[in-house]
Amino acid sequence: MANDKKLVEAITSMNDDFAQWYTDVVVKAELIDYSSVKGCMILKPAGYAIWENIQAELDRRFKETGVENVYMPMFIPESLLQKEKDHIEGFAPEVAWVTHGGLNPLQERMCVRPTSETLFCDFYANEVQSYRDLPKLYNQWCSVVRWEKETRPFLRSREFLWQEGHTAHATAKEAEERTQLMLNVYAAFCEEVLAMPVVKGRKTDKEKFAGAEATYTIEALMHDGKALQSGTSHNFGDGFAKAFGIQYTDKENKQQYVHQTSWGMTTRLIGAMIMVHGDDSGLVLPPRIAPTQVMIVPIMQKKEGVLEKADELKAMLSDYKVKVDKSDKNPGFKFAEQEMRGIPLRIEIGPKDIEANQCVIVRRDTREKIVVSLDDVAAKVGEVLETMQNDMFERAKAHREENTRVATDYESFKDIITNKQGFVKAMWCGDVECENKIKEDVSATSRCMPFEQENLSDVCVCCGKPAKKMVYWGKAY
Amino acid sequence: MANDKKLVEAITSMNDDFAQWYTDVVVKAELIDYSSVKGCMILKPAGYAIWENIQAELDRRFKETGVENVYMPMFIPESLLQKEKDHIEGFAPEVAWVTHGGLNPLQERMCVRPTSETLFCDFYANEVQSYRDLPKLYNQWCSVVRWEKETRPFLRSREFLWQEGHTAHATAKEAEERTQLMLNVYAAFCEEVLAMPVVKGRKTDKEKFAGAEATYTIEALMHDGKALQSGTSHNFGDGFAKAFGIQYTDKENKQQYVHQTSWGMTTRLIGAMIMVHGDDSGLVLPPRIAPTQVMIVPIMQKKEGVLEKADELKAMLSDYKVKVDKSDKNPGFKFAEQEMRGIPLRIEIGPKDIEANQCVIVRRDTREKIVVSLDDVAAKVGEVLETMQNDMFERAKAHREENTRVATDYESFKDIITNKQGFVKAMWCGDVECENKIKEDVSATSRCMPFEQENLSDVCVCCGKPAKKMVYWGKAY
Repeated sequence: MANDKKLVEAITSMNDDFAQWYTDVVVKAELIDYSSVKGCMILKPAGYAIWENIQAELDRRFKETGVENVYMPMFIPESLLQKEKDHIEGFAPEVAWVTHGGLNPLQERMCVRPTSETLFCDFYANEVQSYRDLPKLYNQWCSVVRWEKETRPFLRSREFLWQEGHTAHATAKEAEERTQLMLNVYAAFCEEVLAMPVVKGRKTDKEKFAGAEATYTIEALMHDGKALQSGTSHNFGDGFAKAFGIQYTDKENKQQYVHQTSWGMTTRLIGAMIMVHGDDSGLVLPPRIAPTQVMIVPIMQKKEGVLEKADELKAMLSDYKVKVDKSDKNPGFKFAEQEMRGIPLRIEIGPKDIEANQCVIVRRDTREKIVVSLDDVAAKVGEVLETMQNDMFERAKAHREENTRVATDYESFKDIITNKQGFVKAMWCGDVECENKIKEDVSATSRCMPFEQENLSDVCVCCGKPAKKMVYWGKAY
Repeated sequence: MANDKKLVEAITSMNDDFAQWYTDVVVKAELIDYSSVKGCMILKPAGYAIWENIQAELDRRFKETGVENVYMPMFIPESLLQKEKDHIEGFAPEVAWVTHGGLNPLQERMCVRPTSETLFCDFYANEVQSYRDLPKLYNQWCSVVRWEKETRPFLRSREFLWQEGHTAHATAKEAEERTQLMLNVYAAFCEEVLAMPVVKGRKTDKEKFAGAEATYTIEALMHDGKALQSGTSHNFGDGFAKAFGIQYTDKENKQQYVHQTSWGMTTRLIGAMIMVHGDDSGLVLPPRIAPTQVMIVPIMQKKEGVLEKADELKAMLSDYKVKVDKSDKNPGFKFAEQEMRGIPLRIEIGPKDIEANQCVIVRRDTREKIVVSLDDVAAKVGEVLETMQNDMFERAKAHREENTRVATDYESFKDIITNKQGFVKAMWCGDVECENKIKEDVSATSRCMPFEQENLSDVCVCCGKPAKKMVYWGKAY
C-alpha cells in the first residue's frame, strides 16, 4: 500500500514552509504527478475532476451571455504570429517551435499556441464581412504552451489547460462592455463557486497583455499574503483588426474595423483554491466545486448491518456527490485521507449511531461535529454544505481584509511588503519608473488599479509627484 | 449577407461527385472552415456543438464503466517514444517535432503526441506498485497531431480531437474483457445515438495498431459504398509493460507485469454521420446528437401575434432543443438553411395555423409534413424525433445490407469492389500476401474479421489455399 504510506506521513506545516506545504498538498491530495516532460504536469483524476467542474460551471455562465464554443488549430505559423508587433514581442521568447513534420523540415516553422489571438484574427478576417456578422462571441477550451524557466504545479507550467474567449464587435463601446462583462463573470464565479474573494481592477500599462489597449484583472490573496492573478479580460480596441485587416461593411455601407476582446482563465484557479482554503491537514474544497462532497466512513464496518446502513445513507443523500469508503483501512486513516483530499463533509456511522438512528457529520473546514438524526440527514447535509461554502468565503475575505494595508509613505510601504506581505493600497503617479523602482526595491508589482478607487493621499507613494490612481501592490505568484 | 449567399447556392449532388458533395456540406452547413495552418481545420460553432454532444454522451458511458479522466502532457520526449519498437516504427514518420523552446534549442527534441501510450506507460510505471493499485482505468480528451500528407475535413487532418482511454490490469483476461467492453460501448453509442450501424470485428495483423497484440474495430459503411473505421480498441497484452517496466506485486508477493488496453474515438465520427445520413439538401443529424432539434419558422411573421405564438410554441417544447428563426429572410430561405444544417425537425406556424390552433411539423429526413394541434405538439414532437431516430438507423442498416455482398471467387470479388463498391464478405487464408495483392489489384483492404463468422467457402478468395477467417473487405476512408 505504497499510496497509503505517502498519505499518513504528515505534510509540512504551512507556517514552516508555505511553498513546501503547497507542493506536499498537490501531490498527497493526488491532484497531480510530475511527468518525464520537464515543466509539464500530469493532472490525476482528483485534480482533473476539479477542472471538469470548473469547466462545466464556467461554460454554462459563458453560454448564458451568448458565447459559442469553437476549436482552432494548436499551431501558429511564424508569419501569422508576427502580424501584431507588441504581441510577437511579448510571446516570442516563450513559445515552443515545431520545425519538422514527420521526416521533413517544414517550409515555415510554427509555434504551439501560447494564446490564439492571431488565429482568431485570421479567422475573423475571412468570416466577418457585414455588420450582420457581428458580434462574434467565440470561446475555446484547450491547452496552451509557454516555455517557462521556473515551473510550479498549477501556478506556472509549460503546458496548461485554459479557456480563451475571443470576440469581435462593431463598436468600441460594445467591446468595452464585453470586456467588463466577462471580468464580472469571472469574479462572480470565483466568489460564488470557489469561495474566493477577488479585487477587480485594471492593469497598468506595464502589466497589461501584449497587444491590448486595456487589461482588466481579478486579483486574489493567498494564505501566505501573496497575490494571484486569477483571470484577465482584455480590450484590444481595433489594434489587431488593423494588423489583420478585419473589416465589415456598416449599415451606411462604409468599411469599418472591428473592435475585439479576449479573456481567459486557467488551471491556475486550482492552485489559487488550494492556497486560499487549504490547511495543515491538506486540501479544503468549497462544496460547490468539490467532485466528492461527502465521504461516508463506516465505523466498525465488519459488524453486521454497518455497511448496509452506510449504503442506505448514501441513497438518502442522492442529491449530493457522495462516496462510501469501504476499504479495509482503519477509520483514523480514512479520516486523514478524506481530510487530505479536501472532501467538504465526512459522515461517521457505526453500530452505536445506528442503534440511536443517527450519524455524525464532520465539517472539513472547522472540524465541527454535528450529530444528526437519520430522518433529517438529507436536509441537514444540504444546510451544512451551504453554511460551509459561505463561511469559507467569509473567512477568506476576512483574511484578505486583515492583510490589506494602506501606505502613504515609501518607508512604511517597503516595510509592509517586506515584513507583513499582503496587499498594500497606495497612490501612484502613473509612471512606469515608480513601478520599476518598487519591483527592484521590494519585488512587488502593481496588481491592479481597482475599480473602487479611494483617495488615500495626493502624492505617489514612491516618487512624491502628484498621484493619479490608487493601486493594489503586492508580491505575486 | 455574404453567408446567406453561400447557403442558397445549390450544393453538388451526391451522385455527381460524392467527394465534392461532402466538402460542400461541411462548409455550407458551417461545421468547419479551413485555416492558415495547412491540413488543420477550424471547428465552427455548429461543428463543435456536435462534438460537445458526442463528448458528453461518450463520457457518461465511459464513467458508468468506472473510467476516470486525467490529462497528460502534449509532448513526448523522443527517448520515451522510442521505448516500444513497433510503436515508434508506426508513428515516427508522421509526428511533428518540437526542437526549440523560446530562443534556445532543446537538449532532446520532443514530438507532439500522435497518441499517448508512451506517456501513460511512463506514468503507470511510477504509479502502479501493488495489485491494490489495479486496475487503472484512465481516459483523456485532447487533440493529437499526425503529419498526414493528404487531408480532408473530419476524416483525416493533421490535428484532430479525440479521446484516448488507457487501462492497466492485473491479468490478461481482464485486459481482454476491457478491450471488448469498450468496443461494445463504442458500437452501442454509434448505433443508439448516431443511428449508424457498425460491424464489430478484429483487425488482421497487417491492419492492427502499432504495438498492439489485438485491435478490435467498428466499421461503418458510408453512402458512397466506402468503409469508415469508426472506433478502435486495442489489447496490448504485456508488451508495453515489459518495454516500460510496469510491474506490480501480486497477493503472493510476486512481481508481475500488468496487461494494458487503449481505445479511441475521434471527430471522424462527425464525418461518418455526414456520409451515412446526409442528402442533396445537406446535413441530416440524428435527433439524439443534434445541437438544435427543432427550428420553428414563423410564416408571415410581421402579422400581429405570429412571433408571439412562435415563442409560446418554443416554451411548450422546453423538453427539446428548440430555436425560433426570427431573421428577416423569407421562409423558403429559412427552410433551405435549416435543411442544410441538418436540424431534424422544422415547425412552420403562420396566421392560418394559429387560427386553426395547429402547426406543421416537417421531418428533415423524409420531408413528411405532419399537421398537429397545438394542444398535442409537445408529445408529438417527442414521438416524431424518436421515430426519425429509429428510421434513420433502419435506413442506414438497409443501405449497408444492400451493399454487403458475398464473393467466393477472385474475379467476382474484384468486380464487386471495382463496380459496385460496398462491403465484400469473403474467405481469407490468413496470409498478408493476399491482403497485399488485393490492395494492389483493387485498392481494397481487410476491414475486419467480424465476430459473427460465416463459412462461405473452404478456400481463400484470393489464393485458393484453405481459408481461416471470413473477412469484410472494402475501400476505405
